[in-house]
Amino acid sequence: MTRVVIVGAGFAGLSAMEELQGIDADVTLIDKHNFATFQPLLYQVATAGLNPGDVAFPVRTMLRHHKRVTFRQGILSSVDSAANEIGLLDGSRIPYDYLVLALGATTNYFGVPGAQANCDAIYTLDEALAVRNKVFAMFEWAASHGMKDFNLTTVVVGGGATGVEMAGALAELKQRALKTDYPALDPSSARVILIEAQDRLLAAFSPSLSKYALSELQSRGVEVRLNTAVKAVHNNGVELADGELIDSKLMVWGAGVGVDSAVRSLGLAHLKNGRIEVGSDLRVVGANNIFSVGDVAGTTAADGTLLPQLAQPAIQTGKHAAGSIKALINGETTTAFKYKDKGTMATIGRRAAVAELSGGLKLTGSAAWLAWLALHLMTLLGVRNRLSVLLNWSWHYISWGRGPKVILGG
Amino acid sequence: MTRVVIVGAGFAGLSAMEELQGIDADVTLIDKHNFATFQPLLYQVATAGLNPGDVAFPVRTMLRHHKRVTFRQGILSSVDSAANEIGLLDGSRIPYDYLVLALGATTNYFGVPGAQANCDAIYTLDEALAVRNKVFAMFEWAASHGMKDFNLTTVVVGGGATGVEMAGALAELKQRALKTDYPALDPSSARVILIEAQDRLLAAFSPSLSKYALSELQSRGVEVRLNTAVKAVHNNGVELADGELIDSKLMVWGAGVGVDSAVRSLGLAHLKNGRIEVGSDLRVVGANNIFSVGDVAGTTAADGTLLPQLAQPAIQTGKHAAGSIKALINGETTTAFKYKDKGTMATIGRRAAVAELSGGLKLTGSAAWLAWLALHLMTLLGVRNRLSVLLNWSWHYISWGRGPKVILGG
Repeated sequence: MTRVVIVGAGFAGLSAMEELQGIDADVTLIDKHNFATFQPLLYQVATAGLNPGDVAFPVRTMLRHHKRVTFRQGILSSVDSAANEIGLLDGSRIPYDYLVLALGATTNYFGVPGAQANCDAIYTLDEALAVRNKVFAMFEWAASHGMKDFNLTTVVVGGGATGVEMAGALAELKQRALKTDYPALDPSSARVILIEAQDRLLAAFSPSLSKYALSELQSRGVEVRLNTAVKAVHNNGVELADGELIDSKLMVWGAGVGVDSAVRSLGLAHLKNGRIEVGSDLRVVGANNIFSVGDVAGTTAADGTLLPQLAQPAIQTGKHAAGSIKALINGETTTAFKYKDKGTMATIGRRAAVAELSGGLKLTGSAAWLAWLALHLMTLLGVRNRLSVLLNWSWHYISWGRGPKVILGG
Repeated sequence: MTRVVIVGAGFAGLSAMEELQGIDADVTLIDKHNFATFQPLLYQVATAGLNPGDVAFPVRTMLRHHKRVTFRQGILSSVDSAANEIGLLDGSRIPYDYLVLALGATTNYFGVPGAQANCDAIYTLDEALAVRNKVFAMFEWAASHGMKDFNLTTVVVGGGATGVEMAGALAELKQRALKTDYPALDPSSARVILIEAQDRLLAAFSPSLSKYALSELQSRGVEVRLNTAVKAVHNNGVELADGELIDSKLMVWGAGVGVDSAVRSLGLAHLKNGRIEVGSDLRVVGANNIFSVGDVAGTTAADGTLLPQLAQPAIQTGKHAAGSIKALINGETTTAFKYKDKGTMATIGRRAAVAELSGGLKLTGSAAWLAWLALHLMTLLGVRNRLSVLLNWSWHYISWGRGPKVILGG
């Protein structure tokens, strides 16, 4: 029996698994967690809009509809393309006839000194929960010790979608929470500063949407600093290129994603930035039965530029690689991957978002916000999670932010 | 202005706070967490029926309706009744005119060797989440390593309400989860063994209900061992009084609650079992402005026996102590506390529960189960949490157990 092994249960890996449904092969899905994380909503976990369980979906529950798929929790440590085997960190070896590497990405600190050590990221569920705990621990500490003017500044680095969404949600959270829950604290001490090196936010969108995002964030109290480079991050704040130090105890790094350095050591062809080099049919360069998809793969658009590390390219490449495997199993030839840009969206806050769709249609405000809500609800995994998120969002909207502001652990 | 300090935001402390609403005094509420935990449902968090956020409610959200109450996160370290001050672990000192000690209880291991070190408890949110993680980590490990016959036995020690609820929920979880999510594992290796030292389960209920609980648990596959004492707990299993070792990697201690040993060192009058000694008006013996309520207080029923450490006595004593404080502030005298037994309930599983109400009315089966669901939904804090629990329960019921089976952290 043909054996297909998919490593990674994110958008790309799950999309590949879906597409393989019904083929005459044994499929093994491997991930380091026993759940799939819905990453686009992690910033809402970090800002107490959603509970961690709302954005996590157990892989095995999904597999109830995929009888030929076996799940295995484990961490990839090596690829032996000569022996057609992969190795896991626990020492096990798993043979494959076709391998799909959908390893995802990780936070990219671009070598900024101190950034990794002193910044929080919101790229995994644990990280998002840690940010939530830190925000409220800081508030509780200041309120419990009568530190009315305690510096509650949060710095968000990076003005892309992640940074904009995080800064907007944090600003709304701080405004509401300090007014209703921490009357002893001075709201003006809870600044949110968003730092972007380029001259506009949301560089992936049209300039008019960047302008809209800037004005919406500012109206929510976010201090946006454009054309501002970060030189270093210290445990007491962010140092800018011009030497200024922004005093802060909580710094969130949203400046970009990259590929885990461990991927380079797998012995596969890779680009300078670490992404695995793939041919037009998404096969890894130099291998004939290994595919790479999603964030980890250096897939290009028609114009030769690398595809952004987002859900849509992941879903489309995952599906295409699975289609190629089906073709190869049937003795057919593979086809070239063509990316269909369906557009992108980012939310700024209550009734404010931007959307830029493929036909050039641009939306802002309530229309974009409702489109954003609908799309994310529809793509979320699991009916229970969808209902729970819908409940939380409705509740949040009506109650102006009475979310799960609890400090778990320790 | 009169200062009332309440230590503990459980059923007793919150009930005292509610009753003090509207009085002319500054009230300070202190708890080590920034949220109140709905303890009766922790076993459902431990067995992936509910998410942690469903049973945690942020204290400050509650205080929006209590303008005169200040919350402070902190841990009580000392009571200086001469100076009318308490000390917190962080070194702060808080003065009071009236003090309400609602410190709650903790798991009681009754000095059984190895019990504390090797058993898990489900008395705090973190503990419940740790049990959930361990259950699924064990399943994942066995499934990922092809250990079809790996011993997945869970031992639950204690046949009171906690033990019965936990054993019943675990048995249902294991039966369903192994059938649907872990087809590679042998369901017969996932035993649930409930150990009780006395000759019947649920000793606080009538014998007919004990009998019903026993037969319902057995029909769900729980192996109940009555008249069985635990001699010691090792890291590989439970050793019984007769020398038998029950091999197990997950042992849950539900045999009872007691008072934290730190309470003895507060310098207040206490009973042999550590509970704070109170007079008939719930004032601590030897103090005239310190009250103790809930699980930590040695409150007695009309017949002189100690009240059980449950929600009802906590709610009633909290309310009574607050009433006494109001009387003292108004220059009136306090009255003696009289416990009203409203009955107790315990759930065994899907459509099976027992309820024994004050008039002697006994319910079993679906009627008791529906009464249990309704009562717990009504007493849960927060509309969002109620809706979320209702959603989860409905979903769980319809889908036969597709809950939040995710392993968080590490």
